[in-house]
Amino acid sequence: MKAVNIGILGLGTVGGGVANVLARNRVEIARRAGRDIVVTHAAAREAAQDVNTDGIEISNNAFAVVNDPSIDVVVELIGGYEPARELILQAIANGKHVVTANKALIAIHGNEIFAAAQQQGVTVAFEAAVAGGIPIIKALREGLSGNTIEWAAGIINGTGNFILTEMRDKGRDFADVLAEAQQLGYAEADPTFDVEGIDAAHKLTIIAAIAFGIPLQFEHVYTEGISAIDAADVAYAAHFGYRIKHLGMTRRTDQGIELRVHPTLIPEKRLLANVDGVMNAVLVHGDAVGPTLYYGAGAGREPTASAVVADIVDVVRALTTDPGNRVPHLAFQADALSAIPILDMADVVTAYYLRLQAADRPGVLAMITQILGQHEISIEAMLQKAPSTHEAGVPIVIISHRIRERQMNAAILAIEAQEAILGPVTRIRIESLASD
Amino acid sequence: MKAVNIGILGLGTVGGGVANVLARNRVEIARRAGRDIVVTHAAAREAAQDVNTDGIEISNNAFAVVNDPSIDVVVELIGGYEPARELILQAIANGKHVVTANKALIAIHGNEIFAAAQQQGVTVAFEAAVAGGIPIIKALREGLSGNTIEWAAGIINGTGNFILTEMRDKGRDFADVLAEAQQLGYAEADPTFDVEGIDAAHKLTIIAAIAFGIPLQFEHVYTEGISAIDAADVAYAAHFGYRIKHLGMTRRTDQGIELRVHPTLIPEKRLLANVDGVMNAVLVHGDAVGPTLYYGAGAGREPTASAVVADIVDVVRALTTDPGNRVPHLAFQADALSAIPILDMADVVTAYYLRLQAADRPGVLAMITQILGQHEISIEAMLQKAPSTHEAGVPIVIISHRIRERQMNAAILAIEAQEAILGPVTRIRIESLASD
Repeated sequence: MKAVNIGILGLGTVGGGVANVLARNRVEIARRAGRDIVVTHAAAREAAQDVNTDGIEISNNAFAVVNDPSIDVVVELIGGYEPARELILQAIANGKHVVTANKALIAIHGNEIFAAAQQQGVTVAFEAAVAGGIPIIKALREGLSGNTIEWAAGIINGTGNFILTEMRDKGRDFADVLAEAQQLGYAEADPTFDVEGIDAAHKLTIIAAIAFGIPLQFEHVYTEGISAIDAADVAYAAHFGYRIKHLGMTRRTDQGIELRVHPTLIPEKRLLANVDGVMNAVLVHGDAVGPTLYYGAGAGREPTASAVVADIVDVVRALTTDPGNRVPHLAFQADALSAIPILDMADVVTAYYLRLQAADRPGVLAMITQILGQHEISIEAMLQKAPSTHEAGVPIVIISHRIRERQMNAAILAIEAQEAILGPVTRIRIESLASD
Repeated sequence: MKAVNIGILGLGTVGGGVANVLARNRVEIARRAGRDIVVTHAAAREAAQDVNTDGIEISNNAFAVVNDPSIDVVVELIGGYEPARELILQAIANGKHVVTANKALIAIHGNEIFAAAQQQGVTVAFEAAVAGGIPIIKALREGLSGNTIEWAAGIINGTGNFILTEMRDKGRDFADVLAEAQQLGYAEADPTFDVEGIDAAHKLTIIAAIAFGIPLQFEHVYTEGISAIDAADVAYAAHFGYRIKHLGMTRRTDQGIELRVHPTLIPEKRLLANVDGVMNAVLVHGDAVGPTLYYGAGAGREPTASAVVADIVDVVRALTTDPGNRVPHLAFQADALSAIPILDMADVVTAYYLRLQAADRPGVLAMITQILGQHEISIEAMLQKAPSTHEAGVPIVIISHRIRERQMNAAILAIEAQEAILGPVTRIRIESLASD
């Protein structure tokens, strides 16, 4: 069969990785795909030295690549919103299939892009947009297609997980580890997207759409980062048998879909609690299959390239399929998406870890438990430490049973209003991730 | 679009599960597949009481179902070799697509079945044949298609993993836990397939074929079960920081493909070492993606049905594809399979755990270390326990560095020939499962 011609937009970390993997595994991939897959064109200012550019025509005109009639599949790896969006829409208009690793673009502009692709009968594949090399999109969209998905929870930002792992393993502070992560290249100079949860929210947006058959709704994700996590919280969590992970969590409830990214206490026995360093993992619960977990590298040149190349092979197979009978972009047929609303964070029900600093005098614990009781919050465990010489008051840590966030918000406000409470209450949500 | 008609052969545990899941999730599945998928016929002596048989015509003539022109997809869930093989070949001859969960049949007769399907332009899907509900076939065959797969290691028999988990958690003996597993329904009355590794060898045969593009070669799997594992081994392994798991392991080497099923010591920090009870997991290492892990229920009615239904949806999508451009049965094009040989077990290189009982007198340790040294075997760690009153001699446990199995076999023979060594040497292989 005729070789398939690939045009890559961007030869940076990921683009260079895709060119290298396609060249290195060319025979192995052709044995699978049944035809040669060749990068013929790339748009880049210049290729990095460690990229195999043999046989690739490199120009700095990305639109020329998108408009080149010899190219079958356009691979967008320049990132960002523009001109990535415009280039993809142009490729679609030209009847070309598209592969992208651009999570931000898909989370924000995916609905528009998929509608355009649907109309043109082409495919836009984006496995690399979520959890790097882990084939989680494929697992959710195809491997679990017999299930009603109940919930998914993922460690989907490697930088954040590296920081939390170091904090736990070495008792280090957030700022200290972040600085090291930046030095190691795990974190950007501006780490906001990673540590404030925005990157995870992009990925969770995509996971939720595919799990439940809802449109992409990044604007409705509740997003909280890890920058407020203190070394003390990591230690107290361990005391109660938990680890703190930055989770993306989405769950189907009768009232709506939960869509939330925040630090979370997880029982230390769970596999997800043992996913360390820069690794990612997604736990998916289907009504038939029960819990399944997918683990691997969530970022990095070659793991991301692995997902991009798998998408390219899929797209090559789709070249000869009926466009109306392909795997839909968001797992569900475009005309069968559900209008089920996203649940307001105040309506989410979880358990909580609370840490507060209280004046060291009689009656304070009674006051706190009374306020929690007034808000129908049951206490599962409590820890009061002895006062230390270098800080005012005594730390109190509380593990609550499950309660609606609205009630916990009200209770925290009431507690913080007490004169005996010194400073704000730290609140971290707890998920048991149990099957039932 | 017209509904797709399914004929199920067998309405037992899995067949009943498939009927139930297709009925319960009918709307959710149609939202994904773009058309209704309906079980119209089933072959069974009688359906179990808890199976939703609404609208299903049940007969006890499986060949009538296979020959019914109204049926688009045949789902074989009767198990065993015959008449399952004959029914599938008849369905293929009739131009029908086939879905099966029959691991033994695929491992033994898959080459013949896939050749027939290839000739007829139909698909035989078998996701449920390996690791139950975990979409591991899809991940390996499609999700990692850009990689040269280097190795895969899996806990792929839930019964064996349940037994080993109980032995570790509660210090119980093999026979004791096996009896309980039989009572709980986790183990068959004749547990040979599970505890002697045959079931795992069937699954590993399929994993290796798909990972490396080689024919199915069950006859070349080195297979060792868990029935010889002693509670003492579990405890000693823990002492050295390992857990004992029953692993299927396949690895590409320059000399050939390793294909082996046996108890294995794994460092306790690895995720795979923490997969407990009846759960399964497969760790796959690709050259681009690095390590990825897939975890879930490896058996059971609904998890297996989850995989069968996902296959049905895939097959429904394949109805309108070019047969020459589909995902090949064994991941690689039928005319591009590799003739790379399976490595003889004697040529496999691993580390070892050895336990032996020696006479309690001077010079015995020196004798053992001398024999190991003569066979170029380096010792990483050694433990000699104090003599106990209720057994002869003293137990000695040795952890070796990596060495070719042939040399270890010779060393063990030489050690066992010593008059000071009481009884046979217990030998369990060790895998670090590290990335490099």
